[in-house]
Amino acid sequence: MSSAKSEWKKTWQGGLNARSWQRFELEGQNFLLKTHVDHREGYEFLLTDLTSMWHEKMDIDQVKKRCKTLNPRFEAPLPTILRLLQDNTETKKDSTDYTIQHKGEGMVLVLETKVGGIRFTWEFHCQQAQKEMLRDQLLEPLMTMVGELGRREHRLGQLLKAKDREIEDYKMGGATVSRKNLQTERFDPTTFRKEQLVCKHVAKCFRFAITSFAFRYADVGQTRRNVIWPPGPRGVMLCRCLT
Amino acid sequence: MSSAKSEWKKTWQGGLNARSWQRFELEGQNFLLKTHVDHREGYEFLLTDLTSMWHEKMDIDQVKKRCKTLNPRFEAPLPTILRLLQDNTETKKDSTDYTIQHKGEGMVLVLETKVGGIRFTWEFHCQQAQKEMLRDQLLEPLMTMVGELGRREHRLGQLLKAKDREIEDYKMGGATVSRKNLQTERFDPTTFRKEQLVCKHVAKCFRFAITSFAFRYADVGQTRRNVIWPPGPRGVMLCRCLT
Repeated sequence: MSSAKSEWKKTWQGGLNARSWQRFELEGQNFLLKTHVDHREGYEFLLTDLTSMWHEKMDIDQVKKRCKTLNPRFEAPLPTILRLLQDNTETKKDSTDYTIQHKGEGMVLVLETKVGGIRFTWEFHCQQAQKEMLRDQLLEPLMTMVGELGRREHRLGQLLKAKDREIEDYKMGGATVSRKNLQTERFDPTTFRKEQLVCKHVAKCFRFAITSFAFRYADVGQTRRNVIWPPGPRGVMLCRCLT
Repeated sequence: MSSAKSEWKKTWQGGLNARSWQRFELEGQNFLLKTHVDHREGYEFLLTDLTSMWHEKMDIDQVKKRCKTLNPRFEAPLPTILRLLQDNTETKKDSTDYTIQHKGEGMVLVLETKVGGIRFTWEFHCQQAQKEMLRDQLLEPLMTMVGELGRREHRLGQLLKAKDREIEDYKMGGATVSRKNLQTERFDPTTFRKEQLVCKHVAKCFRFAITSFAFRYADVGQTRRNVIWPPGPRGVMLCRCLT
């Protein structure tokens, strides 16, 4: 592996970009959030309601200081504190209270929980994120996912056609199905797309898109790490084998 | 059709939301843009470089006035002017010059072309769009597409499994393929996803994600119109049959 590639991989794997978005319902509103902690550098925290994006970056000294201020009775080494922050923002814990406070253009997320019987409070004091963050953390990953899922759809279509050729061959050889309901229709991508235009179980199917996004981001994220970023000039590159 | 649904359909089909994004390379930079024209209301124009989004809305009187100012010798009825604007922003025309000028936080897109031998110029004077526009026009559609493409992937997986059951049945009945290369492997979604994590033709496959996005937006947009919006409470709803 070239040193530039290795350096990139190190940086990329360690950064906020490598983290998956998590969906949090806070006070009846949907948010996506992600946290990256690093024992030498501190943490970086990102929160969005899809309209605004808020961001906080704290080095280890700032983390220690805030911890002392908010939790004078709480004694723990830095890695424990950072792990607490990571754990409580990776999944919404039933044992933790989450509250949000808008402060002008900023946003404060307050966590309140208990660790070994002792109360532990944290406040993420976030400012409006730079516009580039919305692009880098949300828009470009979404576009990459659309490209990647499109590529997969294309590949699945190819696999279906190969199966059809195999089935056709059996039929030409005189084979028949033992039960009628095992017989499938020949796959046609155009018909498939038309059929998919109307979802037949609307009521059953509706979900918040962001749940799906958070779910699929983790799934496709690995591809992105391998393929999307290293060679890219400025702008979004993606792996796309379509047309 | 209920009157509320019919009203919604009318409003929706007519609006900027119903328009697909088009990818334009302007002065070496990638943009997405869309225009909606209406002979009674004027036009609405949206432009983004994924970091900022710019917007202009003009009523018919403003369109007529600007046309007179920019093209004193050009005589044409309003529908012709609007069609010109629509055509020149729906696809990038070789016969039209496009230039962009940043003006503070705003953006001006200038079109220069010839109509019947007469020079025709247009200037879209855009202001920074409200944040909600980025959400409504870009983020939510992208999330919907991710959900929709995910649902399709799931459906294609089901179709592949049905084909495998049919093939298995032929084999159980003693059928064999006439040529070895017609034989396919049993489809397994987990293996498929793992295989897809590394794109094998990286150099060949790289494309700008926004090309794919513009392409797929039109494709999935129809679903969105039918399914996503009418019953939705505030937030993004999508048709999702996963998990």
